Amino acid sequence: MKRVSRKRLLSGMQPTQGKLHLGNLEGALRNWVNLQEEYDLFCCVVDWHALTTMIDHSGEIYENSIGVATDYLAAGIDPDRSAIFLQSQVKEHAELYLLFSMCTPLGWLERVPTYKEKRELLTGYADASHGLLGYPVLQAADILLYKPYGVPVGKDQVPHLELTREIGRRFNYLFGNVFPEIQNVLSETPSMMGMDGRKMSKSYDNAIYIADTPDETAMKIMKAFTDPLKIRKDDPGHPEGCAVCDLHTVYNPNYVLALEECRQGLRGCVQNKRECIESVNEALAPIRARRRVLEQDRGHVVDILAAGAEKARAVASETMKEVRIAMGLP
Amino acid sequence: MKRVSRKRLLSGMQPTQGKLHLGNLEGALRNWVNLQEEYDLFCCVVDWHALTTMIDHSGEIYENSIGVATDYLAAGIDPDRSAIFLQSQVKEHAELYLLFSMCTPLGWLERVPTYKEKRELLTGYADASHGLLGYPVLQAADILLYKPYGVPVGKDQVPHLELTREIGRRFNYLFGNVFPEIQNVLSETPSMMGMDGRKMSKSYDNAIYIADTPDETAMKIMKAFTDPLKIRKDDPGHPEGCAVCDLHTVYNPNYVLALEECRQGLRGCVQNKRECIESVNEALAPIRARRRVLEQDRGHVVDILAAGAEKARAVASETMKEVRIAMGLP
Repeated sequence: MKRVSRKRLLSGMQPTQGKLHLGNLEGALRNWVNLQEEYDLFCCVVDWHALTTMIDHSGEIYENSIGVATDYLAAGIDPDRSAIFLQSQVKEHAELYLLFSMCTPLGWLERVPTYKEKRELLTGYADASHGLLGYPVLQAADILLYKPYGVPVGKDQVPHLELTREIGRRFNYLFGNVFPEIQNVLSETPSMMGMDGRKMSKSYDNAIYIADTPDETAMKIMKAFTDPLKIRKDDPGHPEGCAVCDLHTVYNPNYVLALEECRQGLRGCVQNKRECIESVNEALAPIRARRRVLEQDRGHVVDILAAGAEKARAVASETMKEVRIAMGLP
Repeated sequence: MKRVSRKRLLSGMQPTQGKLHLGNLEGALRNWVNLQEEYDLFCCVVDWHALTTMIDHSGEIYENSIGVATDYLAAGIDPDRSAIFLQSQVKEHAELYLLFSMCTPLGWLERVPTYKEKRELLTGYADASHGLLGYPVLQAADILLYKPYGVPVGKDQVPHLELTREIGRRFNYLFGNVFPEIQNVLSETPSMMGMDGRKMSKSYDNAIYIADTPDETAMKIMKAFTDPLKIRKDDPGHPEGCAVCDLHTVYNPNYVLALEECRQGLRGCVQNKRECIESVNEALAPIRARRRVLEQDRGHVVDILAAGAEKARAVASETMKEVRIAMGLP
C-alpha cells in the first residue's frame, strides 16, 4: 500500500551503451532500489542527452535505452512503484529545455568543467554543439519537470546539481515560485575500480557488466590488474590499488580475511582471483537471472516504458501548466 | 476551391509588441496577403523567440501575440486559406529545437552577426542566454517543421535563411533526406522610412502603426523629418531623404507629381504633409476598419489561433514522425 505523502526522487542514466556495468550498479542503481522503500522514484533513461556525443550513430540509442531499462528492472527497480521511462517519450522535457534555454546565461554554461573536457574529446561530426553546451540546461529540465524532493547522488555528482538549482532559482526569481530547491540525497556508494585499476568506465574498456555471463566475468577478472610488487604468491600484497581486492570488498562477505591473507603473503593472486570470481558471480546471479528472463520478453520492457512515460507525463504536464502560467504564456 | 498541389510557405513575426507598423505591413505582410493566391501560407507568431529579449517582461508576450495576429487578419491574411498560429501552441517546435540543438556546431552560431549585435545591446537579466545564441536553431526548427517550399523574404533577410538551410543540410547528411532545400521567395517590397528619417522601427520610436488612429497618424506625420535644406516653401526640396516624401511614394497614387512639385519648390512641406496624411489614412482605412471590428471580438481571434495551431500541428507532427524515424528515436 502506498503512503500518500511519499517524497519524489528523480534519477537518470544515459544510454551511451545498452548495458550497465558494476560501477553503475553499485554506485547508483542498487541505491535507487533501496530508496524505493521510502520515496516515489522516477527513473529516466535520458536518451536525448546521448545525442550530445552519439549524433553520428544515433540509431543505436533506442536499443541501448531498452538495454538500460532492462538493467534497471533486473537490478530491482519495481515498475509498480517506480516510473521507468525514456526522456524522449515525454515531450515536456523539450519544452522546458527551450524555456530554460532562454533563462540561462551563456557564462554559466561555458564555465562548466565537464563541458570543457567533453569539448576537447570530441572530433568530427560530434563536434561541440549547441546541445552539448546546453547539457546542464536539459538536465535541469529533466529534474525540475518533476518538482522532486531531491536527486540521489554520489559525492562527485554534487557540483552538477548546483547548476540545476541555479537555473531553478533564476526561474523562480523571474517568474515566481514554481520550482523547489532540490536536495542532494547523498549515499555512501563505492566507487568501483575497473579491471585495469582505473575507475570503472565504458570508455576505458575495463568494465564488468551486469549482462556479462559468469564466464566472461571470470575471464575479465583473471586478466585483471593486481599489485605489481606481488610477484610470487607469498610476497606481501597491497590490496589498496588492486582491482581484484576492490571487487572483494564489495562482493565477498569475508573480504576482511581475504585482504589480510593477501597483505601477509598467505594467498596468491590466482587464488584471490578465483574466490573473487565466485563472489562476484554469486552476488550477480539473481540480477542476471532476471535480466535473462527480461531479454526474452522485450515487448514487456517496452510496455513498462510506455506505462512509465504515461506516469511521468501526468506529473510533467502539470508542471508545464504552472510554468506557462508563471511566464504568462498560456 | 483549393488546388491540391499548392506549395507551402512559412512566414513569421515576433510579438515584441502588440501591433505592427507600416514597415511590417509594406515590407512583409502585404506581400504575404498576395502570396495566399498562389501558396499555402503558414503564418506563425513566434512568441517563444520573443523570450530572447523579453525574459523579464514575458507577461506581455501573449497579449502582444493576439495583437500581431489581429494585424495579420486586418491586413487580409485569410484564416480559411492560411494557418495563423502561435509557435508556443505547437510543441513540436520545441522538440525539433532540441534535436537541431544537438546537430548545430557552436561555431556556426557564434559567427552570426545579429547575435553579436544583440549580445552587445542586452543588459541585466536579459543578458545573452543559451536561447539567444540558439535563435537561428529555433528559427530553423520553425521553418523546417513545415517542410515548406520556401519563405517570403526581403533582400536583407536572405543571410538569415542561409543558416536554416545549413542546419537542414546537416540533418539530411547525418540522418537521410528529410528536409527540402528552402527557397527564398523574394519580393520587391519597400523599406519604409521612419518619421525621423531612419529605418522605421519599434526601437527607434519613429513608426506609424496599423493600430494608430487617423489623428495619431496625422500628428506623427506633421512632426516628421523633412529636407533640412528646404526652409521656405518655395525652396527646392530633396525628396530622397524626406520621411514624408517616402510615405508619398508608397501611399499617394499621384506621388510623381507631388515629388516633382517639392523638387521644384512649387509646394511647401506643410502642404506636402497634409496631402500625405490624407493618402496614408485613406490607404489604411479598410485595414483599420477590420482591425477595429476584430478588437471588439478578441475571442474570435483566439479561436482562429486555435484552429491555426491545429492545422499547423497536423503538418508538424507528421514531420516529427519522419525526423524520429530518420534519427532512430521512435
